[in-house]
Amino acid sequence: MAVYTEVTDDALAAFLTEFDIGEMVAFRGIAEGVENSNYSLKTTRGDFILTLYEKRVNVAELPWFIGLMEHLAQNGITCPLPVRALDGSALQHLSGRTAAITTFLPGVWPRRVRVEHCGPLGEALAQLHLAGQSYPPERHNALGPEGWAPLLDKSIDGADDVNPGLGEELSAALPGILAAWPTDLPRGHIHADLFPDNVFFLGGKLSGLIDFYFAATDLLAYDVAVCLNAWCFEMDGSFNLTKGQALLAGYNRVRRMSAVEMAALPVLCQGAAIRFALTRLYDWVNTPPGALVTRKDPMDYVRRLRFHLHATSGADYGG
Amino acid sequence: MAVYTEVTDDALAAFLTEFDIGEMVAFRGIAEGVENSNYSLKTTRGDFILTLYEKRVNVAELPWFIGLMEHLAQNGITCPLPVRALDGSALQHLSGRTAAITTFLPGVWPRRVRVEHCGPLGEALAQLHLAGQSYPPERHNALGPEGWAPLLDKSIDGADDVNPGLGEELSAALPGILAAWPTDLPRGHIHADLFPDNVFFLGGKLSGLIDFYFAATDLLAYDVAVCLNAWCFEMDGSFNLTKGQALLAGYNRVRRMSAVEMAALPVLCQGAAIRFALTRLYDWVNTPPGALVTRKDPMDYVRRLRFHLHATSGADYGG
Repeated sequence: MAVYTEVTDDALAAFLTEFDIGEMVAFRGIAEGVENSNYSLKTTRGDFILTLYEKRVNVAELPWFIGLMEHLAQNGITCPLPVRALDGSALQHLSGRTAAITTFLPGVWPRRVRVEHCGPLGEALAQLHLAGQSYPPERHNALGPEGWAPLLDKSIDGADDVNPGLGEELSAALPGILAAWPTDLPRGHIHADLFPDNVFFLGGKLSGLIDFYFAATDLLAYDVAVCLNAWCFEMDGSFNLTKGQALLAGYNRVRRMSAVEMAALPVLCQGAAIRFALTRLYDWVNTPPGALVTRKDPMDYVRRLRFHLHATSGADYGG
Repeated sequence: MAVYTEVTDDALAAFLTEFDIGEMVAFRGIAEGVENSNYSLKTTRGDFILTLYEKRVNVAELPWFIGLMEHLAQNGITCPLPVRALDGSALQHLSGRTAAITTFLPGVWPRRVRVEHCGPLGEALAQLHLAGQSYPPERHNALGPEGWAPLLDKSIDGADDVNPGLGEELSAALPGILAAWPTDLPRGHIHADLFPDNVFFLGGKLSGLIDFYFAATDLLAYDVAVCLNAWCFEMDGSFNLTKGQALLAGYNRVRRMSAVEMAALPVLCQGAAIRFALTRLYDWVNTPPGALVTRKDPMDYVRRLRFHLHATSGADYGG
């Protein structure tokens, strides 16, 4: 669920006077999303999304995210376009939070990924990488490789409660991944969280990308590895090579990965898997029972990690 | 949060072919509501709400609710109008649930109740009662007085964990309420759950009533008592007499309560308070930690009950 901060109707009415987007028609909380509070906002001018940034977002970094979305939208990526208030800034204040209004994107995220989704997803990811090249400011990826050992330290005491031996398994895998981590691959702005619930489709076509709040400047091929993890595994934990082929072919149609990037896919996929296993484990261990957050099972990504530890080349992913 | 059942995009696309409401544009889960799964559905023809009925709703009773909403909408009440599918029925099947599409209502529910909300709320409640008179089928109120003792029985073992002495307090209050419960007041269809999150306002005017799935045939004045409980108490548990006066005056402008109904308000309010205290207590005691349901504090309604146990006439509520 994704409404942590309630917005009173008076506060909302006052907030809307700061924008030139028409009169309010409706306002409902959106169930999707876990990091921020999101509302669907309808005005006499159309549909918008109102986001209130919650505790995990560093307010000082919001201008970077807003600037990236504006840049991407202006460079052909269908993503939410922040709406500037009358004072010229997209970032405003509402109910004790920093808040922004963005445009509404049509489409539905795929609850069940099919092969046909993976090609357009790969293309869109590559388009995002190319469009991002002309956005100069950088953002350090706090959830990149050097963040993983500290995450493990903060979660390891509860790891065996999630699954016996899990702490040992992650501790054994991490050093090898970090030692083999590539440093010389092409860098740029990555989405870093392009899961199916952040990608809309409409009429069989990809209609938009959302939720850029994990975006950062990092290895482009790492973003491909995140998507291979998020889009190409079946519910039973098996890797669907046909989906991997479609995803990589789609990506390569727009931005061709080098042989070096392709060869690095096994370790990049290991890194992506351990990153999501670790944040899920951290949340699992640190979420009080009864909290309103869906705890996601870290083991989904531990099983992916085991697959990736046996991969030896890009061909294992359909490359 | 209110998405318990995920709907795949393929299932949704197939479902929509059963209706004549245009092509899909967008589909998002709605955070509000606790009983059913609700989605906001946008098509080329406009905005709709898709509801999947979850376990607490008795499917056999759905035609009564759907019929009531149709009847009310046709008789001047702004409430969701069920959309009939091509086969003529509003009730269809989707993702293993019975499902219905209803029209979308504009407006925003008041997160903070002001006196100005209470008059229109009272008027709308009375209009609902009058419009309901011409809908012949009845529905037994399972959460009416004879349901309270069984609810208490099923929750009392955990009551003192919520608050020391709570089990004894409720056990002591219930017999007196049941003994004094009126039987000869005007009856009709009541909403029975007309809390602020079920009432929309737009531009200072009441713009719609939603969520009729607790509606039943019962004492009309009991519905007023539910609203006095839900709308006229402040966060600190104090009763706001000005709000009570506004609510009752609004109701009486449309349907004048008799002196007998007015005199029964103290016991009706006691009953309404213990009903919500008991269902909240039941949920508290029977909700596993970590479940995705917001547990609401039963004590909010125990404090209201204490107020009502000291009330002696309708004048105590502003009547």
